[in-house]
Amino acid sequence: MDHPETRAGQIFSVVMSVLIIINVIFVLIGTLQNQPQALSVTSSVVEIVSVVAFTIEYLLRFWTADLRYPGSRPSVARLRYVRSGMAIIDLLSILPFYLPAVIPVDLRVLRILRLIRLIRVFKLGRYSAGLATVGRVLKRSAPMLVSSMSVVALLMIVASVLEYYVENPAQPEKFDSAFAALWWAVSAITTVGYGDVFPVTVLGKLCGSVIALLGVGLVAIPTGIISAGFVEEANRGAEAPQPAIHEVASTERSAAST
Amino acid sequence: MDHPETRAGQIFSVVMSVLIIINVIFVLIGTLQNQPQALSVTSSVVEIVSVVAFTIEYLLRFWTADLRYPGSRPSVARLRYVRSGMAIIDLLSILPFYLPAVIPVDLRVLRILRLIRLIRVFKLGRYSAGLATVGRVLKRSAPMLVSSMSVVALLMIVASVLEYYVENPAQPEKFDSAFAALWWAVSAITTVGYGDVFPVTVLGKLCGSVIALLGVGLVAIPTGIISAGFVEEANRGAEAPQPAIHEVASTERSAAST
Amino acid sequence: MDHPETRAGQIFSVVMSVLIIINVIFVLIGTLQNQPQALSVTSSVVEIVSVVAFTIEYLLRFWTADLRYPGSRPSVARLRYVRSGMAIIDLLSILPFYLPAVIPVDLRVLRILRLIRLIRVFKLGRYSAGLATVGRVLKRSAPMLVSSMSVVALLMIVASVLEYYVENPAQPEKFDSAFAALWWAVSAITTVGYGDVFPVTVLGKLCGSVIALLGVGLVAIPTGIISAGFVEEANRGAEAPQPAIHEVASTERSAAST
Amino acid sequence: MDHPETRAGQIFSVVMSVLIIINVIFVLIGTLQNQPQALSVTSSVVEIVSVVAFTIEYLLRFWTADLRYPGSRPSVARLRYVRSGMAIIDLLSILPFYLPAVIPVDLRVLRILRLIRLIRVFKLGRYSAGLATVGRVLKRSAPMLVSSMSVVALLMIVASVLEYYVENPAQPEKFDSAFAALWWAVSAITTVGYGDVFPVTVLGKLCGSVIALLGVGLVAIPTGIISAGFVEEANRGAEAPQPAIHEVASTERSAAST
Repeated sequence: MDHPETRAGQIFSVVMSVLIIINVIFVLIGTLQNQPQALSVTSSVVEIVSVVAFTIEYLLRFWTADLRYPGSRPSVARLRYVRSGMAIIDLLSILPFYLPAVIPVDLRVLRILRLIRLIRVFKLGRYSAGLATVGRVLKRSAPMLVSSMSVVALLMIVASVLEYYVENPAQPEKFDSAFAALWWAVSAITTVGYGDVFPVTVLGKLCGSVIALLGVGLVAIPTGIISAGFVEEANRGAEAPQPAIHEVASTERSAAST
Repeated sequence: MDHPETRAGQIFSVVMSVLIIINVIFVLIGTLQNQPQALSVTSSVVEIVSVVAFTIEYLLRFWTADLRYPGSRPSVARLRYVRSGMAIIDLLSILPFYLPAVIPVDLRVLRILRLIRLIRVFKLGRYSAGLATVGRVLKRSAPMLVSSMSVVALLMIVASVLEYYVENPAQPEKFDSAFAALWWAVSAITTVGYGDVFPVTVLGKLCGSVIALLGVGLVAIPTGIISAGFVEEANRGAEAPQPAIHEVASTERSAAST
Repeated sequence: MDHPETRAGQIFSVVMSVLIIINVIFVLIGTLQNQPQALSVTSSVVEIVSVVAFTIEYLLRFWTADLRYPGSRPSVARLRYVRSGMAIIDLLSILPFYLPAVIPVDLRVLRILRLIRLIRVFKLGRYSAGLATVGRVLKRSAPMLVSSMSVVALLMIVASVLEYYVENPAQPEKFDSAFAALWWAVSAITTVGYGDVFPVTVLGKLCGSVIALLGVGLVAIPTGIISAGFVEEANRGAEAPQPAIHEVASTERSAAST
Repeated sequence: MDHPETRAGQIFSVVMSVLIIINVIFVLIGTLQNQPQALSVTSSVVEIVSVVAFTIEYLLRFWTADLRYPGSRPSVARLRYVRSGMAIIDLLSILPFYLPAVIPVDLRVLRILRLIRLIRVFKLGRYSAGLATVGRVLKRSAPMLVSSMSVVALLMIVASVLEYYVENPAQPEKFDSAFAALWWAVSAITTVGYGDVFPVTVLGKLCGSVIALLGVGLVAIPTGIISAGFVEEANRGAEAPQPAIHEVASTERSAAST
């Protein structure tokens, strides 16, 4: 059995989380140049251990899928599991390791395969219960967030075309197209401000100031939406004893009692 | 008939939205230098197709204005439509195409006319129902937002004059007037920080630090106002089943049933 | 009589506000070099007109102080007015003009006197009713804001001393003392990021990353406090018909009816 | 007796706070190079005075520990005090002064000991009652804050590996490993934007724009969580007359009455 509320289940969670984090750190380390022999050996060992662990995990989950979907027959349950979002992430986490053994690939493809290993990060989502509330709030606020973010995107495009026409004569090499100006607009509206591109003319600075101030306002809108979402969530939690978590718990319990 | 809640109306919305987004992207592409022949031909085709589509849309809306304002006579309704905000945006979206054909214009004016095409972006507002809530919250918070933003503006001016007097002796070419210092103040208070102008003297850095910290606080004020607006909106929505959207829906239904 | 709720009072408000804004703009313009003759003449005219207007305003307010404080005797009321915060700002706005006529001052003092003219900006506070709510919320949140800001200040000092010890060996000319590191810390925590000073060592970048992330969190705290303040204000407004504004209105009405 | 609600207790609080702040400022000043003789003498005097004061404070607190924990016997109470968080900070504040006298240390260790003096800043926490609410809100929001911050951390790692693969061919010296890209990702997501590292390729800028926009969104999440925390705190405060502060006051009173 896979995820009981027992001590074994908790140890399994922690071990898998640690393994995933070690994996991500080794993807970072793997990009270092002139690595000593010992490091690349360790890296390979970590890779093999994690692929084996993740494969066993995948097969176990596949095998016990009928406990996850109690109503359906084993074969249907397994098919339902394979098609679920987390199962696809699980599969993509281990596939890049097995693929080169089955079909020959060149070095370029191999590099992209290595990148796909990063998808293992998303496996962590399963083990973190605390993210559930954040996810729920974001999901509920999604329509308004998408709308306001699309307004920001449109504003950026308008700003970049305007700034291109204003600044192009003064610095033709930096504002060589509206796309270069778009990079500036993103940097100004998100208030990152790298300082590689900025307006130099008086009119350009005036537009740039307005954009920066609008940027502050437009950062305030998603923040406001999300804040209201969390306030609403807190109010609901005060009234009802958090049905969403309750529901998960009952599912787990039924799985454990089987 | 124009905007029924039917399937045809939905398809119309999506087609128009896609057309507008393609248009905006082609305004961006139009600023690229050394464009291949194929691209500029495509660009012209897109321009002609959209102007034709937008003209037909405008004429249809003009024609069916009496359905939009059920109480008034056709001629009055059409006049009311022409004077409405969205109709002016619709007209400005197509006018720059027809103008050069009617009266001869030089290249400089033509450039500005091209810029006006960007106004088509605002046509999207009509098709996005999700923005309604955001707009309503911003409208209700407007007086407080304007007040606090004007305080920020005044603070910026005071900061820039102070910083000009402090920094001018140390870097006379960068802080050559209070307007140059104003550009710095905008960059510091909005926390963009391009890095093209910054204080170098001890007193200037001290002032700059205070300004940056005030900037953080003053970003917090509009965010707080907007957050409170969304919380209020959510509370209202919990009590009454969102009257504003209901109202729009009933208007649309009555228009459709006519 | 000074500020009735009549049409004359409203016109007076608008005229004074415009005069103050023109004044501030001319302080900005006054810092431009190589000004044409016409501009400096206009500047002097604006200065004389505003000083005359502000002096008349001050004398009128002084004269009608007994209407403002109905209970007290005229002489006591006038003394109370002179000691009020707005009256001191009013006096400081006009004093720098009269001072050089009374006592001889050198050029250096004259420059500081010119800066004091900027205090006229704060006269605007009187004419903007919209700022009342923002001011009230900030006043109520002040203890928590000051506490959290002082934590930020202490964190900055700790961060700068740490970063000084870490980065000093690598870039001794940029991190020459903890004060230079403090300038970096302000720039990092407020997320301005000019880019004139930044860590280059691995340990320095690690500390810098932690500081930047803490900065994000610490920007969130004042925003949260202010948001809660506005939500509370909105809730109060929904229950009682805004007593603070009501109170002001009744004071004004009683002043007008006298 | 140590902290009565009497005038003597208040004076003690203020004197200790001022002493701590002077100490922190002298740690900053101590990093200045080419100090005049007078300054280093003052610095030594400040150090000796504060160590004496802090030692007396520590001993007094140790002695009166039985008043702090009324139920326990004197020896148990003193042990409980020594193990409390604030007592450890108190001890670490004075230990680095006495250590070199007892055991010989080399210059390198001495430097680290000097750094530990900065821990005195945290002694201030005891004297600031205003921080209690902020601390309480942060403590209650901690699980959600940690969850969302870990998502940001994971996003940063994914972003840096992606950006490394995209930008490495274009600027191999700046994006020499994923760790260099991680430094860029921190700078972009926190919207600091120093401008020492930034993408130059089209694909890199596209990824960078997405990261910057996600950064804005992910700054909004902790802000939203903390805002909701303060709103909840304000709602509780409105219902009950702030039990936490009441509790502290009653403890103090009982300590004073003993």
